[in-house]
Amino acid sequence: MQSLIVVAGGTGTRMGLPVAKQFIEVEGSPLMWWTLRRFRAALGEALDVTLVLHVSLFEGWAELEGRYGAAGVDRVVAGGEERFHSVRHGLAAVPASGGVVGIHDAVRPFVSADVVRTCFREAAVHGSAVPVIPLKDSIREVDGAASRAIPRDALRAVQTPQCFDLGRLRTAYAADYRPDFTDDASVWEAAGSSVHLVPGDPFNLKVTTPEDLIVARAFLREGH
Amino acid sequence: MQSLIVVAGGTGTRMGLPVAKQFIEVEGSPLMWWTLRRFRAALGEALDVTLVLHVSLFEGWAELEGRYGAAGVDRVVAGGEERFHSVRHGLAAVPASGGVVGIHDAVRPFVSADVVRTCFREAAVHGSAVPVIPLKDSIREVDGAASRAIPRDALRAVQTPQCFDLGRLRTAYAADYRPDFTDDASVWEAAGSSVHLVPGDPFNLKVTTPEDLIVARAFLREGH
Repeated sequence: MQSLIVVAGGTGTRMGLPVAKQFIEVEGSPLMWWTLRRFRAALGEALDVTLVLHVSLFEGWAELEGRYGAAGVDRVVAGGEERFHSVRHGLAAVPASGGVVGIHDAVRPFVSADVVRTCFREAAVHGSAVPVIPLKDSIREVDGAASRAIPRDALRAVQTPQCFDLGRLRTAYAADYRPDFTDDASVWEAAGSSVHLVPGDPFNLKVTTPEDLIVARAFLREGH
Repeated sequence: MQSLIVVAGGTGTRMGLPVAKQFIEVEGSPLMWWTLRRFRAALGEALDVTLVLHVSLFEGWAELEGRYGAAGVDRVVAGGEERFHSVRHGLAAVPASGGVVGIHDAVRPFVSADVVRTCFREAAVHGSAVPVIPLKDSIREVDGAASRAIPRDALRAVQTPQCFDLGRLRTAYAADYRPDFTDDASVWEAAGSSVHLVPGDPFNLKVTTPEDLIVARAFLREGH
């Protein structure tokens, strides 16, 4: 049993646009349509998809489905205060009681079928699978006005889908919220489980800023 | 007195292309031409520019200047084994004895005039100025098969131009090479000086991979 939770709990204000970023039309479809097509293409029609959406966007969502056709989600549930709460809402709505669940950012439309399949397959074996890529820039840690170089070779940027054993992830998400829960791996880890890393994909960009939107258009035009 | 060292010490093998990445033509000019134009536009003709180039590319450089016109560098010197040695060669060739020197990656053609001017101005006041931006992805530190989440809010990605007091940077570069010297700030810091951080620019991408090249074309087409 494979389940997917697509998280779009925010209202997209960072982009400075009148429309939420996951709803922006790029090359003929809203970003989120591209995202969902990738998962259907990688895992097939049996995949159960829950979309977590900020309540203020429910109406916009219905309009978009009217205009662009069904996006291919099985249900839409309301987002919560933080990403943590949104994922918890999603986990409560997933009908399965076992198997692997993937949690994916709505605004990562370029995830490859290969990365999706690898994450779901490895999570079935190891309990978790989180895609990561090396960092290209040097990294510094700041502390007030001071800062220090951090060895870049030991660092990885975390992407999605982050995939887990559904039952164990539900148990992990029963925890109280903490500000350092920035992704699902950190919640999983806080519950005492180890995180299994797999290679991500440099194209698997999170589209959150105006410059990312330029990149997104270029990637889609060139067939990525 | 303002000096610039543009570092292109590598042969560009990571791109998997027959031409070094800094020589790739994008929107009518090799990447490095775009880079140098930005600095001339920001700081004017008085800026002294030293290009550090891998010796295997000297011939190709001459051909490119024949084809695309002068790139606007005052001298070309040979790169060294590591980036550290390339910068050291550049510092030895800079004619000035004082003022600010900026060290810039040849493959960052999108640096804004604003960031360039800020870095040179702040370095004149503080001794150093290094542009940084926040990270968008969650970050993990790996240690063998284990890994742990690192608070992203405290991390910054380091860009270029990294600007310094020329005399003090020359002293810092008299040190023996160490593998953790991944950028100029780390060399500066090892000499006991503090690094002054300034806001970078999300468009100031380092073009090192095939997907970056798609991004580079899109940015240039859209006027960035």
